[in-house]
Amino acid sequence: MKLTDSPREMMDFGSDNEAPVRPVIMSAIVAENCGTVLSYGEDATTAALRPAFEELFGTDLEVMPVSTGTAANAISLSQVMPPHGATLCHHYAHIRTHECGAPEFFTGGKLIAVGGDNGKLDPAELRAVLKSNEKTRYHSNRASALSLSQATECGTVYTPDEISALAKVAHEHGLVVHLDGARLANAVAHLRCSPASITWQAGVDILSFGSSKNGTLNAEAIISFGSHRWFDDVKYRLKQTGHLLSKTRYLSAQLLAYINSGLWLEWAREANALATLMAEGLEKHEDIRLAFPVQANVVLVEMPQALADHLHKSGARFYPWAESPGCFRLVMSNSTDEKQVQTFLRLARAG
Amino acid sequence: MKLTDSPREMMDFGSDNEAPVRPVIMSAIVAENCGTVLSYGEDATTAALRPAFEELFGTDLEVMPVSTGTAANAISLSQVMPPHGATLCHHYAHIRTHECGAPEFFTGGKLIAVGGDNGKLDPAELRAVLKSNEKTRYHSNRASALSLSQATECGTVYTPDEISALAKVAHEHGLVVHLDGARLANAVAHLRCSPASITWQAGVDILSFGSSKNGTLNAEAIISFGSHRWFDDVKYRLKQTGHLLSKTRYLSAQLLAYINSGLWLEWAREANALATLMAEGLEKHEDIRLAFPVQANVVLVEMPQALADHLHKSGARFYPWAESPGCFRLVMSNSTDEKQVQTFLRLARAG
Amino acid sequence: MKLTDSPREMMDFGSDNEAPVRPVIMSAIVAENCGTVLSYGEDATTAALRPAFEELFGTDLEVMPVSTGTAANAISLSQVMPPHGATLCHHYAHIRTHECGAPEFFTGGKLIAVGGDNGKLDPAELRAVLKSNEKTRYHSNRASALSLSQATECGTVYTPDEISALAKVAHEHGLVVHLDGARLANAVAHLRCSPASITWQAGVDILSFGSSKNGTLNAEAIISFGSHRWFDDVKYRLKQTGHLLSKTRYLSAQLLAYINSGLWLEWAREANALATLMAEGLEKHEDIRLAFPVQANVVLVEMPQALADHLHKSGARFYPWAESPGCFRLVMSNSTDEKQVQTFLRLARAG
Amino acid sequence: MKLTDSPREMMDFGSDNEAPVRPVIMSAIVAENCGTVLSYGEDATTAALRPAFEELFGTDLEVMPVSTGTAANAISLSQVMPPHGATLCHHYAHIRTHECGAPEFFTGGKLIAVGGDNGKLDPAELRAVLKSNEKTRYHSNRASALSLSQATECGTVYTPDEISALAKVAHEHGLVVHLDGARLANAVAHLRCSPASITWQAGVDILSFGSSKNGTLNAEAIISFGSHRWFDDVKYRLKQTGHLLSKTRYLSAQLLAYINSGLWLEWAREANALATLMAEGLEKHEDIRLAFPVQANVVLVEMPQALADHLHKSGARFYPWAESPGCFRLVMSNSTDEKQVQTFLRLARAG
Repeated sequence: MKLTDSPREMMDFGSDNEAPVRPVIMSAIVAENCGTVLSYGEDATTAALRPAFEELFGTDLEVMPVSTGTAANAISLSQVMPPHGATLCHHYAHIRTHECGAPEFFTGGKLIAVGGDNGKLDPAELRAVLKSNEKTRYHSNRASALSLSQATECGTVYTPDEISALAKVAHEHGLVVHLDGARLANAVAHLRCSPASITWQAGVDILSFGSSKNGTLNAEAIISFGSHRWFDDVKYRLKQTGHLLSKTRYLSAQLLAYINSGLWLEWAREANALATLMAEGLEKHEDIRLAFPVQANVVLVEMPQALADHLHKSGARFYPWAESPGCFRLVMSNSTDEKQVQTFLRLARAG
Repeated sequence: MKLTDSPREMMDFGSDNEAPVRPVIMSAIVAENCGTVLSYGEDATTAALRPAFEELFGTDLEVMPVSTGTAANAISLSQVMPPHGATLCHHYAHIRTHECGAPEFFTGGKLIAVGGDNGKLDPAELRAVLKSNEKTRYHSNRASALSLSQATECGTVYTPDEISALAKVAHEHGLVVHLDGARLANAVAHLRCSPASITWQAGVDILSFGSSKNGTLNAEAIISFGSHRWFDDVKYRLKQTGHLLSKTRYLSAQLLAYINSGLWLEWAREANALATLMAEGLEKHEDIRLAFPVQANVVLVEMPQALADHLHKSGARFYPWAESPGCFRLVMSNSTDEKQVQTFLRLARAG
Repeated sequence: MKLTDSPREMMDFGSDNEAPVRPVIMSAIVAENCGTVLSYGEDATTAALRPAFEELFGTDLEVMPVSTGTAANAISLSQVMPPHGATLCHHYAHIRTHECGAPEFFTGGKLIAVGGDNGKLDPAELRAVLKSNEKTRYHSNRASALSLSQATECGTVYTPDEISALAKVAHEHGLVVHLDGARLANAVAHLRCSPASITWQAGVDILSFGSSKNGTLNAEAIISFGSHRWFDDVKYRLKQTGHLLSKTRYLSAQLLAYINSGLWLEWAREANALATLMAEGLEKHEDIRLAFPVQANVVLVEMPQALADHLHKSGARFYPWAESPGCFRLVMSNSTDEKQVQTFLRLARAG
Repeated sequence: MKLTDSPREMMDFGSDNEAPVRPVIMSAIVAENCGTVLSYGEDATTAALRPAFEELFGTDLEVMPVSTGTAANAISLSQVMPPHGATLCHHYAHIRTHECGAPEFFTGGKLIAVGGDNGKLDPAELRAVLKSNEKTRYHSNRASALSLSQATECGTVYTPDEISALAKVAHEHGLVVHLDGARLANAVAHLRCSPASITWQAGVDILSFGSSKNGTLNAEAIISFGSHRWFDDVKYRLKQTGHLLSKTRYLSAQLLAYINSGLWLEWAREANALATLMAEGLEKHEDIRLAFPVQANVVLVEMPQALADHLHKSGARFYPWAESPGCFRLVMSNSTDEKQVQTFLRLARAG
């Protein structure tokens, strides 16, 4: 086996960002490439986003495409939070650990970390942090928003009830509820629920709807449920932050193709299934332990460094998990296939 | 002629942002869509940018792709200017009039407007503003950077000597010199000069190298000449502002295709030629006056509102120029052709 | 006459900031210096501000002391304006010319300059700028607030009707109206009106109530009329910007003493009268021309450089006015007396 | 005993911010109140700060007074750290827990918490966090500064060697070392060391020199040791943040009086001695446990809520410590006397 000869087809479990764009998405980009249209999202393709997403979520909403998940998260939060505000999120939240301070920069404010098992916020701890935040008053930033990740950074998935419980606490304290849905597709595929049931029906006010980790090139959507007052100015904010693409139509075309005919869920189901296959194989290994239940396309395992070294040398790409020593992260992307997983499992057994 | 039946093929002189992507650029995007690679610009395609641009500019440099010109401008300036600093630019500068306060938001600082004919800064006025700025000391933001647009927002082009003269004044006062090259190709095509001669050889320290207005989808490059210390952290800054695309390779592929074999200049020459054709036609019209010399792909004309209305009704798209009442802007894009220009000229004569 | 022997008693027309603190204010500071009290403005002296100012303005309001006028202005604006917003103000506005970009830094947004004679905004021009701002939409910052200076930087005073007219235009376009009242006392003294008539009754929503230029040490007040929702969090914002003094009581004590028994207006009347004396004297001089009507404590005059040099050499301190070459600014402070003015006038005649 | 009759003389252990200004400081303010002088710190009193502090610290330095410790900390950090940077500090650091996000707002960046016993950073953990920060690269803010508190928020004091060890690690990783010296006097008094030995000689680059908690009204100093390049623009930054007082001379007068003849250390010794007395008394109490060694003027104790309630009802003011349930904070200020401490101890014994 000479995986390294063909680096673009290697066993790449490094990130779902490293995969190429799904052909059907690329076709949609190419198909959009016709004629002159109004720029900055005033085009017909972008106008089609709203009805398409309203159908998908079964409610009225506002939607605006941007190029990155970090932009979607930071811009959303900056629209609903003052500089002296704080967003509460899990210790492991992507906005806290992997966005180089984007929420702080865009909002002027702060993130406050809250704990909870399996990468999910604990409602009791959330309540305690909010109570403490009220007591410290103006000495601390005022809690203004709650941000949840679905699926979580640990590869776990909140149930609709879990989100509702957290949103309820947040709303009782006047917070806006934001959902970082970079891997929303994986969560919906896992739960076999409607997208509505884990978003607006569960109390989510704003959604960063991801797609780049699941097959598109650079298309994320900021979605506002319920009150849309903050959304009125969203194009001003996008423009000010360099995120209003003149040729927005190409982002919109990707999103339309992505949610059309359930492709987004089909792709997520495939990645989830490969993660389950991987997890079931690895947990039989006596030196490997699953760090969290595997419910999406991310598998976090504890394994000896020597075994990890062996797998790296054998051609697998994956990284240690920064949050916990001895832990490694394996991500199934749209370019992962069963053969790669089986090869990895075989190599692990032989390691 | 029923232009409105086919909105995507109308006489669109509204903006070079409204045109589609050049087929050869789209092919480069599609060709890049193969295999998994490292994300966030750690890929081989992105690594190829530096030697390619070093060859183009004939000097060592640093280069980083971003999705929008606004991001390129604002991020560049924020890396070389403190919050209490100021960037000096022309009254008409895009960063001042059309970026919704992006430079101010990214830097925390301020823009100071300087005048000059034909959209070009006047060195004597620049010197006077700098002198005054030094006098007011900490009551005003400290002048820290000079930003020039090439080609300018008026469709004019600085000569190498003009840039050198301004850069000299700026450097004497300790300012960094930034060039907003959203239409750099048009300037180079007009001047028939080397890209080097109007950038680093003329004293430009940082360049926003544009391509989206000239045929690509969303590919601009931040280029640092000379001292690169500020560039070391540029990926941190991109990440923090949501501008580090996970799939950066698709931006890089566009830029490589764009500068390959002189395509960028060929396209710019075409657009410039159409602008010249348009200008020569319009200046024969007794009710129309060219507002500025036409040296790039932008034609600014003064015409009666009734004539503009007539042209709009006849199917032409173009907008009033916000900077001067009675003035209208006509932009030649990569989807403009001679027939559209001739039709427009005929309609104007009949108007 | 050897003024320079005693630099602290020289003819100082440089700034009303250069004067010492009025003895009665200093006594109030000393009197406050007793016992331990709650910090951060939770003390009884600070609590007394609200009823005292409500009585002064004849309406319910919220009030919070800060140490500088720049802080009062920038914090006020940042509470009512988003980062993608803009505050409209006069070209000469202190917030635009003398606060080193504080409004931009605190708000993230921008200032848009509007013209008008005598340092007062012209309502027609304001309306035109607002109309243009609406047209450019998200390419420019959205107009969000109007900031007026009373008295103006030119030493002129808006009548209640002039403020009403401007506030009406602003409110029609959804803007918040802010008044920079660094020299409010001088305006009220000049108009012989109630403080209410040029503030909330004329449509002012937020007031920076100044006192440091008129006899206190470091006491300015942010005052909110009408809707106070933005005020709820003002202590958070003060704390975040380093402007919530632990020993706020000493600021509050100054403000209470300042507005007690009309002292603030008595002192302003004195300074205004000296300015009138100075103006009447200077306008008789054949080489001197008043640049603006003298309605407060600031006199702006055009005079030959040689005459200015002569006066400087004779021991007078005053500065050229940055906004207009050949123009000089003379400010009457609480340490100016009639003798100094008369000496200055005599020297000018002899110059 | 009827403490509540005289609220301004109660047993106030709430905060050293709640005490009045020392008479000698107030006298210095009053003495400064004479004549007109240049504003914005261009006066002779402010000019005297540099030689006075250079003598105190035995080295050349730059110094600039500001009104609050939060301003001193946040402005210092913002001058030496980019928006994508991070300042490392203890979990309990005042800049992290009690400044309402000021460092984040001023810098645009982030704080990263590091652990360590007794409120002091652990060098090994610091090293580990820095190593991890380098690994995550642009996904996290780049570690740029280290901020230590001396005395710490736990009432403990770093030895010179402890500071040196931490500064060494910081410098090895290219970080600037900042010391939050809100209670520097208490630390110097405890260590009986020279101010130099725990600042620049131990590797501190920037010092927030506090005095407001130890007897002044509103006088803190930003002090730069070693390279002063960042200091050149400090007045611009102060002005932009509303922290450049027009009448800076009154801050400077306080600082000069404060460090004159060792008064600052005398007062700190008094407060420290009272804290020791309090600690020795309380630790004999069977229901009370000292949470940390008592080395400055702050005593943190664990005590039953019922006992705390009893003491509150008996007229003592003190607060629960937000960082740890069941823990209470007692602070000795310049208005605390031995009688109050003895009364408190007696009440505790009787509780």
